[in-house]
This record gives sequence, C-alpha cells and structure tokens, in this order.
Amino acid sequence: MDFLLVNMTDKTAKRMMLPKKYEKLGGRSLSSTLVADRVDPLIDALGPLNTLVFATGLLSGTIGSSLSRISVGAKSPLTGGIKEANAGGDTAFRLNQAGLRAILVEGMAEDTYVLEIGLSGSKLVPMPELKLLNVSDTMSALRKKYGKHISAAVIGSAGERKMPAAGIAHTDTDGRATRYSARGGLGAVMGSKGLKAIVFIFDRLRFWEVSDQETYKKAVKKYHNNLLSDPGTAERRPKYGTAVTLELVNEVGGLPTRNFREGQFEKAENIGGYRLYDIIVSRGGEGTPTHACMPGCVVRCSNRYPKEDGSFLVSPIEYETNAMVGSNLGIGDFDEIAEITRLCNEYGLDTIEVGVTLGITVEAGLLSFGDGKKAIDLVHEIGKGSELGKVLGQGAYYTAKHYGIERIPAVKKQAIPAYDPRAIKGNGVTYATSPMGADHTAGNTIGHNIDHLSKEGKIELSKKLQVYNMINDSLGACAFVQGILFKDKDLLTEMLSSYQGREWSWEELKEMAYRSLVKEVRFNDEAGLIENDLPEFFSKEPLPPHNVVWDFDKEELADFWSE
Amino acid sequence: MDFLLVNMTDKTAKRMMLPKKYEKLGGRSLSSTLVADRVDPLIDALGPLNTLVFATGLLSGTIGSSLSRISVGAKSPLTGGIKEANAGGDTAFRLNQAGLRAILVEGMAEDTYVLEIGLSGSKLVPMPELKLLNVSDTMSALRKKYGKHISAAVIGSAGERKMPAAGIAHTDTDGRATRYSARGGLGAVMGSKGLKAIVFIFDRLRFWEVSDQETYKKAVKKYHNNLLSDPGTAERRPKYGTAVTLELVNEVGGLPTRNFREGQFEKAENIGGYRLYDIIVSRGGEGTPTHACMPGCVVRCSNRYPKEDGSFLVSPIEYETNAMVGSNLGIGDFDEIAEITRLCNEYGLDTIEVGVTLGITVEAGLLSFGDGKKAIDLVHEIGKGSELGKVLGQGAYYTAKHYGIERIPAVKKQAIPAYDPRAIKGNGVTYATSPMGADHTAGNTIGHNIDHLSKEGKIELSKKLQVYNMINDSLGACAFVQGILFKDKDLLTEMLSSYQGREWSWEELKEMAYRSLVKEVRFNDEAGLIENDLPEFFSKEPLPPHNVVWDFDKEELADFWSE
Repeated sequence: MDFLLVNMTDKTAKRMMLPKKYEKLGGRSLSSTLVADRVDPLIDALGPLNTLVFATGLLSGTIGSSLSRISVGAKSPLTGGIKEANAGGDTAFRLNQAGLRAILVEGMAEDTYVLEIGLSGSKLVPMPELKLLNVSDTMSALRKKYGKHISAAVIGSAGERKMPAAGIAHTDTDGRATRYSARGGLGAVMGSKGLKAIVFIFDRLRFWEVSDQETYKKAVKKYHNNLLSDPGTAERRPKYGTAVTLELVNEVGGLPTRNFREGQFEKAENIGGYRLYDIIVSRGGEGTPTHACMPGCVVRCSNRYPKEDGSFLVSPIEYETNAMVGSNLGIGDFDEIAEITRLCNEYGLDTIEVGVTLGITVEAGLLSFGDGKKAIDLVHEIGKGSELGKVLGQGAYYTAKHYGIERIPAVKKQAIPAYDPRAIKGNGVTYATSPMGADHTAGNTIGHNIDHLSKEGKIELSKKLQVYNMINDSLGACAFVQGILFKDKDLLTEMLSSYQGREWSWEELKEMAYRSLVKEVRFNDEAGLIENDLPEFFSKEPLPPHNVVWDFDKEELADFWSE
Repeated sequence: MDFLLVNMTDKTAKRMMLPKKYEKLGGRSLSSTLVADRVDPLIDALGPLNTLVFATGLLSGTIGSSLSRISVGAKSPLTGGIKEANAGGDTAFRLNQAGLRAILVEGMAEDTYVLEIGLSGSKLVPMPELKLLNVSDTMSALRKKYGKHISAAVIGSAGERKMPAAGIAHTDTDGRATRYSARGGLGAVMGSKGLKAIVFIFDRLRFWEVSDQETYKKAVKKYHNNLLSDPGTAERRPKYGTAVTLELVNEVGGLPTRNFREGQFEKAENIGGYRLYDIIVSRGGEGTPTHACMPGCVVRCSNRYPKEDGSFLVSPIEYETNAMVGSNLGIGDFDEIAEITRLCNEYGLDTIEVGVTLGITVEAGLLSFGDGKKAIDLVHEIGKGSELGKVLGQGAYYTAKHYGIERIPAVKKQAIPAYDPRAIKGNGVTYATSPMGADHTAGNTIGHNIDHLSKEGKIELSKKLQVYNMINDSLGACAFVQGILFKDKDLLTEMLSSYQGREWSWEELKEMAYRSLVKEVRFNDEAGLIENDLPEFFSKEPLPPHNVVWDFDKEELADFWSE
C-alpha cells in the first residue's frame, strides 16, 4: 500500500510508495509519526505548512470486526500541539480499497476543493458550490455529482471558518457523514487548506484481502467468536451503545454536571442508556438502538435516533455528547440533546468542545443551565458564523478567555470530556499527561473495577492504558474490542502477521506504541506544551457528592514521559 | 503497492495486498511466479482457468530511463508452457501510478469488456461496440469515450479470435498502441477472457516516487550519466534503433533468409538500419528516427516510419520484424515491410510469428519469396479471420502441420526469431533451453564479441545470459540498458534498495532469477514440455554462406536446467 500526497497549493495529488520506515506503523502511530517528521512544531496550524494526515490502521479494511477506524492527524489549532482523532465509518475501508495507507494534505488553496479518489486515480476539483454547506447538504451535492455509492470525509461550515471546535465527519454504513474525528480542530485544518471533502468514488465496498488471507480468515473467525461470546460486546453494547456509560459515571460521581460543579445529575436517568433504548424502540420507524457505524462490525454500538413520528433525526447518540451537552448544561431532555447533536453534526462541530464551551457561556451570562432552547440557539450562532458564533467556535478555552473567565475545564486548551478528573482520577492522569490534551480516549480507566476516587495506582494504570490505546489506535481498532483483542495476544499477532506477511510480536507493538508516544511528546515540547497538569480549580473545588479534589501535585506528573 | 484481481466471470475487479512472498519479485519473475503458483500447467490456456498477469518491474514507473517495461504472462496457447512477454510503452507507468504491482485477469466473459482503471473506480464495463475492431480504431473509440490522455493495453481482432499468433499492444508516448507483448499468444489469452482493453484513465502521467526518493534520484542521475556517455546508448541506438542489428547478423551469416534456407540476404542493405534512417530522414514530416517508446527514456531507439509524403505510417520498425517479414520472405522493400508491420500492429499480431508462418506458406505454395503484395494479402486474411486466415493465425507450427510440412523453424511450437541458430549458436542454445521456447530476448548472445559459428562456450554463455535476462526482465529494464546497469552492480543495488526501502544485493538478484527460471522450467515439465532441442533440419541442412549446421546433440542440452 502507498500514500497519497496532496498539495493544495499546486492542486496535485501524487501517489507514492510508503517509505520503509513507516511500514510497521498504522493509524495514530502512523499519523503522529508523519506529522512529527513533516511538520515544524512552531508553524501556524492553520497555515500552508501544516500537514493533515488520514491514516488507516495496521488491521484496517478487512472482514475483521471493528478494526477500521480512521486516524486523522495534524498540528492542532486548538492545543497548538500534535493531534490525532480517530473515528468509525468507512473512510479507512475506502483508503484500503484504493490501496492507500495514508493521505497527506499539504499546502493551501484559496477556494473550495474536493479530492476525488477512485480505485487508482486521485485529483482535486474545485467545487465552489459546496462553500459553507452543512454536512448533509454537502453529502447530497456530492451524491448528486458522483452517485449514491460514494463515501466521504467532509467538513461543515465550522471547518471552513477555521474554528478550533470543528471536526471532520466520515460516512457511516447508511452513507451519512456522522462519524467524527471530532477533537482538536482538525476540521479547521482541513478548512484552512480549502479542502471541503475527500470523496471516494467506488461502486461498492470491497473488503481488503491481506497478505496471507487463509491464516488471517481463520484468526478473524476466532476473534469474532471471542467478541460474540463476551457479554459486553455481544449484548450490552449492541443494545445500549456507549450511552449506558452515563449511569456508571453518574454512580461513581464523576458525571460532569453544570459546568463541572457537580459529579451527579439528578436527571441522569432521563439521558442515560436505558432511557435512550426505550425512546428509540418505542418510537420505532427509522430509529434503531443497534447499528454498525462501519461495515462488518459485529458489536454495533451505534444507533439512529428518531423523531417522535419515527422519522430519522440524528445518528449517533453517544455518552460523551449526552454528558457534555446534557448534564454539563443541566439539560435532562433527550430530544434537546439530540437536536444539539444534530446541529453539531451538521455544522461540523465537536460535541464535547461545544458542550464545555456552552458551560462557559453560562458563567458569561449568555445561557442558563437547563435551557435547551437557548443552547440550541447558541449552536446555531456557531453555524451561522455570527460574531458571537465565531467566539464560541474557538472552543471552551478561548471563549473563557474572551469573557475573562479563568475557571476553564480544559487541558492544553482542549475541553475536558465526560469524566470529571476529581472523581475518576485515572482519567485525570490521562488528561494531564496525554500529548492529546484532555482526551478520554487516550487512556480511559472507567472500565476498570477500581476505586476511581483514589489516586492510588492511577499513574501506572494511565501509563499502561496510554500505551495500550496507542497500540489500539494504531491497529485501527475500536475501544470496545480492545479488551478482547489484547486478551489473546497470540491471536492478535497472528492477525497482524498474516495481514502484513511479516512477523509481529506483542513486544514490538508495545515498543512501537511507546516510541510513537515519545514522538508526540517531543513534538509538544518543541511546540511549547511542556506542562502535565490540570486546571487549578480541580485541586480547590471539592466535587459533590463525594467532595473529592484533584490531589496530584505537579511534581508527581512532571516526569511522566521521561522515565 | 498492491495487485488487482479481475474476475471476468464475476465481472469484479478487486484490489488486494501483494502477499509478502511476492515482494521481492517484479516483471517476469513476478508474472511467472504468479502464473506458476495459480495456474495448473495442464489446463486449457484459452479457458477460464488460465490467469493473465500484467506485472511491473522492480524499478518501474520512475524517472529512471528505460526501466518500465511491462511483463505480461500466462500459460501460452502457442507453446502450452509458461509465457512472459514484456514490452515498452507506458502500461507499467500507469500501473505504478495506480499503486499496482500487478493485474491478474481470471475467469472468462462471453462478451467484449473493457477494464477501466481510473477515477470512476476499477471496473469492468461491457463495450460490445469494440468487437473485432483494429487496434487503432479501438484506441480511437476508447479515446472518444475516456478522453485523449488515456493509456491502454489492447488486443486486435486476432486476439479476440484467440489466435496463438496474437499479442497485446501497449500505448507509447504518442498514445498509439504499438508496443507489443508479442510472443506466445498472450493476445489470444486476453481475447479468450473477453477482455478487449485495459484503459488507464488519468489526466497526466506522474512518475512514481520511491521509498527513499533522495538516494534514488542521486543514483539515477549517475545511471543516466553512464547511459549518456556510452556510444551505444548515447549515439548508435538513438540514431539507428534496433534496425541496425540486421547489418551485423547478415555479416555473421545468421540472417534468416527465405524460410531459413540462407544466412545472408542479397538485399540486406535495403532493409537495414542505415537505409531505414535515410528513408525516415529524407521523407521528413511525421517520421523520426529517434523516438522514446516510454516516458523518460534517454536512449530513444524507437522510430516513426512515414509514408512517402511524410505522413505517419507505422511505429516502430524493428530489426526482428525486418528480418522475419523481410529477408525471411525474400522481401527487400522497406515500404512493404512497413505495411506488413502496420497490418500486424492493427490486427494485433506478433510480427515474428507472422513472418515465419508466411515462410511456411511459401512451402505450401501460397506465396512466392519476394512477393510483398501477396504477403500483405495473406496478413489481411488473418485480419479478416477467413478460413485461410484462421489457419495462419495459429502461427508457424500449426500452419505447417495443417499443410503437412515437417520442416518447421519453431521451438516448443514458437517460431524462431531473427538469428539462425546454426550461425549464432549461443542463441540456438537459448532457443533450445529457454522455458519461453524460441525467444531471442531470453538470452541473446549477438552483442558479444565471440565466434558465433562455434559451439564453444555457448552453453555457459547462454545460461549466464538467461539468468541475466531474467534479472533484467524482473527489473523492468530494457535490453539496451542491461550492459550499463550490470556494469556497476553497486549502483544497481543502490537504486533497488532506495526504491524499495530494503537492502538488495547482486547475489540476491541472481538467486531470485535462478529460482524464477526453475519455476518456469518446472511448470513446463508438468505441462509436458520436457525437451531442450531444436528442429532436426538445423542439424542436417548446412546454412550458407558458412555452411554451418546445428552441432549440439540432445544430450548436451538435456540437463541444462538440472545442474
């Protein structure tokens, strides 16, 4: 497989051989290494010298379930550091189908361009008619031009307006661009380059056939059996999706509520996984609680949320969104959450960043907790690109600075997601130390049966999980299969070896992951992001109901990556 | 880079990872290994179980001069053994541009299909309107449909009629499909599958960028300097092309003349390289003696032959054609040779096979030596697919059998090319022993300053050259750069290593070549082609003017490959 080097300045798309040194990298390790190798940490993230990378995982594109997340990376305009944000959908499948391991987008165009990728040809075409269109309208226009079987990675108006809260949407199995590489403003990087969409023009999806197909198929069969005999991946996730995490985090007392003032929400049951299931099932119609975001997924944790009349409203409804635009804003109404989600999906916004930003607007006197209608209006402001919207589109950190607010739930300027670090200390360590800034996916401890309130063992756990997640994100694997994948390491390395036709060991994977993390940390060091710390208020404000504070001191985390 | 598996029965084109074991193979070694691995040696070469392979060389697609010949392989319907026939043109560049190392065509369609490789994906489309069109009309129709910048590999009516004399034509730098994978009936294999053309739909050619582009560029620069400071590649070939070989072979007394009855032709100077140059230059217009068949070639041994009024007639005029449809038929008129060449190019025929077949028709009383007009008529019969034409399209061996003639200048049923084995004994050893049958390109000794009439040392020389040619054909390199390439082996392995991003040694190349030859020989053994011998008449009929005979006995060559 090769990579495609797209130069927006020259309007060229050139296919090249993947240099040898990148062969054993994939997903996040590939995107981060490419960014670290090609981007000066001090350049303007929204300028022509940034490189936007789309990278497939080491196991992507095949019949293997939940192994084809797409990693998008660049220097982040939000954090100023290195960024990777992976997503489901079918972009990685399409890259595989085109024989590509990665797309690198460099330079900058003045106008609105689309990158066409067929099985073997790629080119940039101007499509000024897409300018500032919503995501679904963009998809309709692309489908009209290229046919109904296309897949795409697109941005909404937020990305074109270079808002650091903007993400990149990838098409799902329904052809809807709703799977977000949400975090860190990668949509703004894409927008800064004048690239509105990457469209994959194929008649139908073909699974990728690997180097040793026979061995691989056998290994995948065993892996699927493992998935289908685990209650989590076989029953709980298909039925309740990610949404049921809300009940758990609320129980632990770490559910961000009313701008991180509380850790439990009195209306939690209104916005949790069980309620979500009931609403979807009772409304019926186009809604479904069980939905695969990517082809071949046997877990199917995604969903389609219907309006009251059963017609389609939005997909997917996920835990982190429910928390950040729900409990964090004091909103206990699923239809309001769904509408905010829909708008974020349409304008091309990260729901976590938007939720935390709206929390800030309460402090600024623009919104009251629980006022869903007003929250919806504010998201529209971002979508319209009004003066107010342009402020909010900068994300929580810059919005707070704009209003002179210093209590900012963000790390490395990126909004803190749906696990309050005071109550879920392992995640706090991850937020403080991850090169990604506050990012639960970098090392989420919530699934571990431990005392989340205590700091004991959390540094070691976070470090282990950050390495494990780098492995997982480099494989292209979904967080929900990580436990199963890593339980049988021989099976995992057999899948990898038969995929690539070269021997893999677990030790190699760990080394690869650690090396890649160090690359990211070094990039950030050179970009000036040297602190491993959380905002001060977490150490001072006890979080109800357990009244816990963040009790790590700076020194404990300072050398996290230097050992 | 990947391969594309095309199934004509299912009408699918599926992109896959190149299995690890093929990574260090290219061109002939890749096509032959794929054929040997996938095709049962006993199947019908014109049935659905044959696999037609298009493979790029290990150095293909780049700025490096003369390194992008395309290897086409399959089980041959002519010899019944394994076949590889490589050609210039730009097919290999287009495969590289598409990120493909190889295309494999399997199965069989009833109708006339085109394989599109381009922006709209890689897919098979029915194009019944192309049925039985000449090559240039096929190109016009494809260009009308797909635009003027396409490249293509196409067959003429001979291929569609499954004639074992049919080749596959590749577009040159003028966009004309005139570069032939001529030998062994690969055009018939393509025709049997219902595949009229592979069309590459790209706006413009992009050179392939290799793994370590910087090192590669430096090495290529040195290699180009070597080419440009050698009188052969810098002066003689650009000016006179391959045609000037005729004077040399005539001098040696090995020029097939009047159906291999004589070794010198009294009108040799009328059909040699110097005369060709004079005709082209004096007519001017669209003619040119110096022409690159593939992008970036600095040797430019090809030509365009004009009509008397200077308008384009045919490209290219080559030594082997001039000999086999010239001296071998007693024809001493370049315009007649050019017209026969043009017709073979249009109908999609191997000029060597046609020349030897027409020599047989003289014995059968259908033609007189020197009667160019009648020879032209007979080629038209093949093109029309008349009853007579269908016989002649089977090639020299079957035509002779049809007329009860047992003096057949063919080895493994493939017509002997333009070097009489009695006078040029090294080539005789190659004809007798090459898995390809009578094929000068498998190990041509003519360029060596030796006593060609003597058998001494020729077994060793042929064996060495057959290994060298397998290396050359696996690199994708042209015969004319082999001497320069192999003189500086460190430079060659540096080019290879920087291309692939893995270390290469000359010893590895030799081992790869020998292993690939053994694969071919074993395929033939299993197909029943076990003899290493020439037709008996070469041992009995002394060849004027030197009155030499073929003086190897069977035993001397029996164990050629088993040591």
